[in-house]
Amino acid sequence: MTTTATAEKVRTSTRARTMRAIVKASAAPGVEIREVPVPAAGPGEVLLKVKRAGVCGTDLHIWNWDRWSQGRVRPPVTLGHEFVGEVVELGEGVDHVTPGELVSAESHVICHTCTACRNNLGHVCENTRILGVDLNGGFTEYVAIPAVNAWRVPPGVPLEVAAILEPTGNAVHTAFSGPLSGCNIGVTGCGPIGLFAIGIARAAGASRVIASDVSAYRLELARRMHADAVIDVSKENFVERVKEVTHGRGLDGVLEMSGNPQAMRDGLQSLRNGGRLSLLGLPTEPFDLDWNRLLIFKGVTLHGIVGRRMYETWDQLDQLLRSGRLDLRPSITHVMAMERFDEAVGLLREGRAGKIVLVPWGEAE
Amino acid sequence: MTTTATAEKVRTSTRARTMRAIVKASAAPGVEIREVPVPAAGPGEVLLKVKRAGVCGTDLHIWNWDRWSQGRVRPPVTLGHEFVGEVVELGEGVDHVTPGELVSAESHVICHTCTACRNNLGHVCENTRILGVDLNGGFTEYVAIPAVNAWRVPPGVPLEVAAILEPTGNAVHTAFSGPLSGCNIGVTGCGPIGLFAIGIARAAGASRVIASDVSAYRLELARRMHADAVIDVSKENFVERVKEVTHGRGLDGVLEMSGNPQAMRDGLQSLRNGGRLSLLGLPTEPFDLDWNRLLIFKGVTLHGIVGRRMYETWDQLDQLLRSGRLDLRPSITHVMAMERFDEAVGLLREGRAGKIVLVPWGEAE
Amino acid sequence: MTTTATAEKVRTSTRARTMRAIVKASAAPGVEIREVPVPAAGPGEVLLKVKRAGVCGTDLHIWNWDRWSQGRVRPPVTLGHEFVGEVVELGEGVDHVTPGELVSAESHVICHTCTACRNNLGHVCENTRILGVDLNGGFTEYVAIPAVNAWRVPPGVPLEVAAILEPTGNAVHTAFSGPLSGCNIGVTGCGPIGLFAIGIARAAGASRVIASDVSAYRLELARRMHADAVIDVSKENFVERVKEVTHGRGLDGVLEMSGNPQAMRDGLQSLRNGGRLSLLGLPTEPFDLDWNRLLIFKGVTLHGIVGRRMYETWDQLDQLLRSGRLDLRPSITHVMAMERFDEAVGLLREGRAGKIVLVPWGEAE
Amino acid sequence: MTTTATAEKVRTSTRARTMRAIVKASAAPGVEIREVPVPAAGPGEVLLKVKRAGVCGTDLHIWNWDRWSQGRVRPPVTLGHEFVGEVVELGEGVDHVTPGELVSAESHVICHTCTACRNNLGHVCENTRILGVDLNGGFTEYVAIPAVNAWRVPPGVPLEVAAILEPTGNAVHTAFSGPLSGCNIGVTGCGPIGLFAIGIARAAGASRVIASDVSAYRLELARRMHADAVIDVSKENFVERVKEVTHGRGLDGVLEMSGNPQAMRDGLQSLRNGGRLSLLGLPTEPFDLDWNRLLIFKGVTLHGIVGRRMYETWDQLDQLLRSGRLDLRPSITHVMAMERFDEAVGLLREGRAGKIVLVPWGEAE
Repeated sequence: MTTTATAEKVRTSTRARTMRAIVKASAAPGVEIREVPVPAAGPGEVLLKVKRAGVCGTDLHIWNWDRWSQGRVRPPVTLGHEFVGEVVELGEGVDHVTPGELVSAESHVICHTCTACRNNLGHVCENTRILGVDLNGGFTEYVAIPAVNAWRVPPGVPLEVAAILEPTGNAVHTAFSGPLSGCNIGVTGCGPIGLFAIGIARAAGASRVIASDVSAYRLELARRMHADAVIDVSKENFVERVKEVTHGRGLDGVLEMSGNPQAMRDGLQSLRNGGRLSLLGLPTEPFDLDWNRLLIFKGVTLHGIVGRRMYETWDQLDQLLRSGRLDLRPSITHVMAMERFDEAVGLLREGRAGKIVLVPWGEAE
Repeated sequence: MTTTATAEKVRTSTRARTMRAIVKASAAPGVEIREVPVPAAGPGEVLLKVKRAGVCGTDLHIWNWDRWSQGRVRPPVTLGHEFVGEVVELGEGVDHVTPGELVSAESHVICHTCTACRNNLGHVCENTRILGVDLNGGFTEYVAIPAVNAWRVPPGVPLEVAAILEPTGNAVHTAFSGPLSGCNIGVTGCGPIGLFAIGIARAAGASRVIASDVSAYRLELARRMHADAVIDVSKENFVERVKEVTHGRGLDGVLEMSGNPQAMRDGLQSLRNGGRLSLLGLPTEPFDLDWNRLLIFKGVTLHGIVGRRMYETWDQLDQLLRSGRLDLRPSITHVMAMERFDEAVGLLREGRAGKIVLVPWGEAE
Repeated sequence: MTTTATAEKVRTSTRARTMRAIVKASAAPGVEIREVPVPAAGPGEVLLKVKRAGVCGTDLHIWNWDRWSQGRVRPPVTLGHEFVGEVVELGEGVDHVTPGELVSAESHVICHTCTACRNNLGHVCENTRILGVDLNGGFTEYVAIPAVNAWRVPPGVPLEVAAILEPTGNAVHTAFSGPLSGCNIGVTGCGPIGLFAIGIARAAGASRVIASDVSAYRLELARRMHADAVIDVSKENFVERVKEVTHGRGLDGVLEMSGNPQAMRDGLQSLRNGGRLSLLGLPTEPFDLDWNRLLIFKGVTLHGIVGRRMYETWDQLDQLLRSGRLDLRPSITHVMAMERFDEAVGLLREGRAGKIVLVPWGEAE
Repeated sequence: MTTTATAEKVRTSTRARTMRAIVKASAAPGVEIREVPVPAAGPGEVLLKVKRAGVCGTDLHIWNWDRWSQGRVRPPVTLGHEFVGEVVELGEGVDHVTPGELVSAESHVICHTCTACRNNLGHVCENTRILGVDLNGGFTEYVAIPAVNAWRVPPGVPLEVAAILEPTGNAVHTAFSGPLSGCNIGVTGCGPIGLFAIGIARAAGASRVIASDVSAYRLELARRMHADAVIDVSKENFVERVKEVTHGRGLDGVLEMSGNPQAMRDGLQSLRNGGRLSLLGLPTEPFDLDWNRLLIFKGVTLHGIVGRRMYETWDQLDQLLRSGRLDLRPSITHVMAMERFDEAVGLLREGRAGKIVLVPWGEAE
């Protein structure tokens, strides 16, 4: 990423030639644990020894080999786009990190020169390649990433948390896409990113954070993340409960994390006039909206959110973590060996987990 | 609106006790021309002698007594929410205008103290009453309005144009809800507000303004408003033509003025990543959207727009008019006597008009 | 502020014809306690029975009859621009508050129609008249104010705190004029508004709040407001200490509350590149700046701050108070009878007080 | 800038080993024309054959070897930070430009990983190295630059104009740091960047552009750039003339391009309340300000501006050029052979030039 003409390759250890990896090996459901070559750090890259990695819903989609995966993924590829590692080798021209440092990875590898990139919208770069999806990722022992994608882990952050800064960044991006300080914030959907968003909104100064879901298990996690109120929408009316909790004001902002049509409609209806809804959750299919009543007459602003602002989001998250006011640990329900990946997939599929963090081969749990 | 304790009522002329007005007289289609009392200026109000008034699609809805009208309008009420008049009387506490001045009216009468108003979002005031809809309007000879709603017409603006600053403000609000300078701006729908938006975007520094409609008549008006390109979506593919005209970049912003689902989908698809779509056109019913593809993955921002920012929008419009770079006259296709209102409604219904301006009884055409 | 044509004057109690007041009686130092007429609520006004009032540095300036006062104040005038009262009478057209409600007063009475007001910049209205400076204020038993200037006190807020929402609003305005969530915020100057700003920045989600002053007394109050670090600039180097506390990052924002040239220079120097400094403190005279080094090469944004955004600031403060995360009580060091105003002035002059709140005649302390 | 592991070095021509260059050869006034080695494109770089280059005031400072130069420049270095060239060689990993394309250069070479860079504030990167100041620049025949710094010249832009996109970007950055559409914009100082700013503000939709200077020569150029009004501050009172031209409103924004204390004070005084002043001109020494009157009580925002937003500014400029509404040619008063650099320096020193563009050896004038 720098233009320094010369930089010597620093090799800090003698490494094996191959390593184990969780690989999407073929165009079919499932994954394989395979022996793959250990990569090297090319120009502008760093090589990381993976310490921990997070499992994401996207991994589940790829495991399932659903339609989206079929259109996007080109096997074989090593999965894993959420991970933290120790820098073990610097490619040519890299000087802002040093071997031994712990870094978490931004998973989007961008082109820096498309119209989006030129407008500081790298998160919607037209040529994005994603680690663990389009490029080999972190469900393995070593991974090479562009040095600019390496974010030094702030001091005091536990390894498990450092592993999941990427998805936490999704939540930061969503939350910070509108005002937070002093606001009533709704979080619809309490999967891992929704859970992170609860903690983030609180740490960032929201007055009240109101979380909703249909799962008692996830709502309990929302409580542990210190939501000011939780709404079980399988039993309670969201709009009425929000009115009650906010003493009639409604929500200043909604962070939509579920992709559920009704959650979005309820969120819009509960917004005060002029509020904003930030939309990260992916609906499984198109759905309709009463545009006039829910959006136009209310003067609502709606933000489509993907990825992380590169790298404001990371800096914001870094600062929240340093403040000591954001504790992500309650959202992590399982830490397990990486070779138990299939088991992790099962837990997610059954809704019996918050965030799951994997420990690679050779790393102590 | 001021707190001056004393202010004498200034009567500048001897007026008749009654006047003619276009009145929604009963809960049924049509209007009546009636003799009604001449109002007086209450505290904080001004009385205007109407000089010109614009006909709006909303007037057509009320004429038709459609479902929206049935739920909102309480006859009898004098219609007309777009008008310019001469100040002829000042209510108590009014001192920022003087009799003889020409003023155009903001039609939203707001409460100033609801949550929206307290956040400078008066355009979505929870207690809005609209002149010509909820309160007596300007399709008559005299009308009393809150003094704060009176905007002095900038010098040199023709009466016909001064009559339609309110709907032009809708277009300004829509256009100015995102970046314009140096931007490729699409305007989907070339009814009067779309036509205004073309002129506004150009005067405000857009690089290219691309307008679309299905009507050859309206597209011709779009050309006269100096659109850089027009697209007849009954014959041409919007997305492809935009790509061509913008040399592959796409649109930085879309001003959606049609309420048409396909126009909105095309607009979103033609946006560059990170662009914005501002939504003023009212769909006739809910419709669906491929949220993932059109909004979320593109990182789009969508603004629901209603009314005018009170009063930034008016100040922006005032400045555009003073610059001499905004000429609204090509959008005005008819100027006719107010008593020919039914004829004006017919022209609008048949799509044979741009903006129609009415001349009240006793005013020279 | 509304246009309701009719509203009956509601008189909720039988009141005396005169009352005691702290009056700037003549063009000379000092004030007088005088018997003055009880005002009535004019159209669009409310009459308040004063419950508590805050003493401000401005009151000290007026007491001293300094150059600013000589140019601005026209005796006789009742002082007091920070106060809370009970609504006891509604003027014509007022319906958003009801007798018996507790309201705190915005002190700026604005014209609503100058260029600033028309751009939602009422805090810099060109025709501002200030309660207690240009118009009779709240250091007395009853005061009439424009109804729109009355802000309902959120539930649970102690009277002493409700009295000082106006100056707290200055701090909210300053703090909210740039990003706060996750930011390192410096507060230079720990007079009352600086103290409020500390609490506000924390409640609004700042990561670290670093406060500075030269007075050990005020720094102790800063600690009680939960500043993350305090710097005694009579003994310590501001720039070095900030560097240390922020681990080299510097400040994302500075809230300048002292008017001291060195504080401003230090604040600018401690800003990270691209940071912002919001300037509320009033320097006693012009001073110079190394513009290139401190502002231009750093890409700094500087905000001149006066008054409160009308009324976003009040809404933000209201929400912070409702969150329970903002406790202003440690900043209030004295609550005393209003007739001891001269004593309060003495305490402020000698720097032996934080905020002083006065209790009017007839109100229980 | 990309992570492509392999990319072959493309050599499109057989080049000489050395070339002529204007070199700051020693720590003393003046420059030398020297024979220097032709560079190669390193990884992530492109090699350009220089077609045209602009002379900047900074070059004059370096020629003079003033105090700033002494502290910054480390001879020998080839000067020239404004230039356009043809791509003749691609370094490893470069794929967004192709040999033969014409590109203009961003002169700031940034680190991409400091706090500023991580917040999309690359223009104030803490580790900026500038082409032609810290690194070899474009006053020569060939120059190697980071590929990400290469901006494809939009079609139809004359070579002379393509040479000066970098300083024009300074003007775009300044202008776009606040609202422009419909605004009254003052430009204080009509050197080249001020001249560009006039054209930019107009193309971007300003209602009125009012330019000031003390030089009749530069004011004539301002007129040719289509300033709506010019003020000769050696003869006229800026504040009064602005009042007159803007019919009492004042300026919505000031683009300060002179570094002159009086220009800045006049600019601030002429701002309407709540306006903004963007400060690009570098004062020669610290100067004082009546902060209260000029900044705080007016609620002014002041932006320190340096460099160009990387790369929003370039995209904005690109779009303005493509619109056909920005013609920079009137600002270019001289095009001359590069070896006449000393003569160009003389013209600038004597104030007898607008922008001067140089033609390298071997390029046809």
